[in-house]
Amino acid sequence: MKELRERIRREGQNLGGGILKVDSFVNHQVDPVLMDACGQEFARRFAALGATKVLTAEISGIAPALTTALHLGLPVVYARKTKPITMPDQVYLTLAPSHTKGRMVELIVSPEYLANGEKVLIIDDFLASGATILGLVRLAEAAGAKIVGVGALIEKTFEGGREALRPLGVPVESLICITSMEGDKIVFGNCG
Amino acid sequence: MKELRERIRREGQNLGGGILKVDSFVNHQVDPVLMDACGQEFARRFAALGATKVLTAEISGIAPALTTALHLGLPVVYARKTKPITMPDQVYLTLAPSHTKGRMVELIVSPEYLANGEKVLIIDDFLASGATILGLVRLAEAAGAKIVGVGALIEKTFEGGREALRPLGVPVESLICITSMEGDKIVFGNCG
Repeated sequence: MKELRERIRREGQNLGGGILKVDSFVNHQVDPVLMDACGQEFARRFAALGATKVLTAEISGIAPALTTALHLGLPVVYARKTKPITMPDQVYLTLAPSHTKGRMVELIVSPEYLANGEKVLIIDDFLASGATILGLVRLAEAAGAKIVGVGALIEKTFEGGREALRPLGVPVESLICITSMEGDKIVFGNCG
Repeated sequence: MKELRERIRREGQNLGGGILKVDSFVNHQVDPVLMDACGQEFARRFAALGATKVLTAEISGIAPALTTALHLGLPVVYARKTKPITMPDQVYLTLAPSHTKGRMVELIVSPEYLANGEKVLIIDDFLASGATILGLVRLAEAAGAKIVGVGALIEKTFEGGREALRPLGVPVESLICITSMEGDKIVFGNCG
């Protein structure tokens, strides 16, 4: 997606170690017009899947998942990383490694909002190793829901996430693919 | 706002101790169409203030702040509760008590995205004691920014937040006001 690529080109920073800083429009400051355009594009690509719910992980997945859900006319659920007191004690909980925190985090969803038989579209900001998204997949499967597609704003193809998701047998759509971040470069390429 | 009141009436749960559970459309599962309508209403109410940025706190503030920012054509910044590795070491950081966590949490904003002279509109999901919002005010003031308005989806008038914000001398707008949660009731009323 052209707008997103241009924005990464202009404002993205390669911090080394595979860390792409996009804090000026995705991860701390958010550009709502860009996020809305991304949501619209995801909605277009996934329209035919018959999803009943969008699932993401707090925090950075919320913006693109919300705009996607808005354009698809679906509710969105964000997996929590700490259990709030409003959540019942029986939950779906899994562990996933956090790329930017350097440790395992919990992903928690209440059974109230993820039901048996639901068709779930997962949306997140990054597809890197796929570990967070596979955590969301486990939560959905624990609930008896079916994954129908996975979308990410930005894929780092050199971290192997697409291969990790292949066994799911669902469409995986990234709006931008980055094929290398060696040195201080950010190289764009095909999503493969 | 009628849609929000009807939704609280239908799905809101009074868990006791002043805790209102709205996890089915605001805090865990989100209804994007409702959030978009709320954002549009905030944009209408605050249009004349000349805000340059919307500020909120992760996590639950993100959805209404994003839709408000979309309708105002502004960027939105969400204060982080843990410092990600993409953030520089010099930050604005304050402490605020969390209502649903029962402890103090950090609110952190990078100086990169909150500048001297900015006119900041704060949007959050709840106005209760006002403690989180006053934390955001301190961050903005530390950056040399000026608060121009405060908006909340739901105000619990019996927790004193509106009085706590009065010294700011800015418009405080809540879309729905709840005047009492005694017993298992949820009583709607004037925002005062």
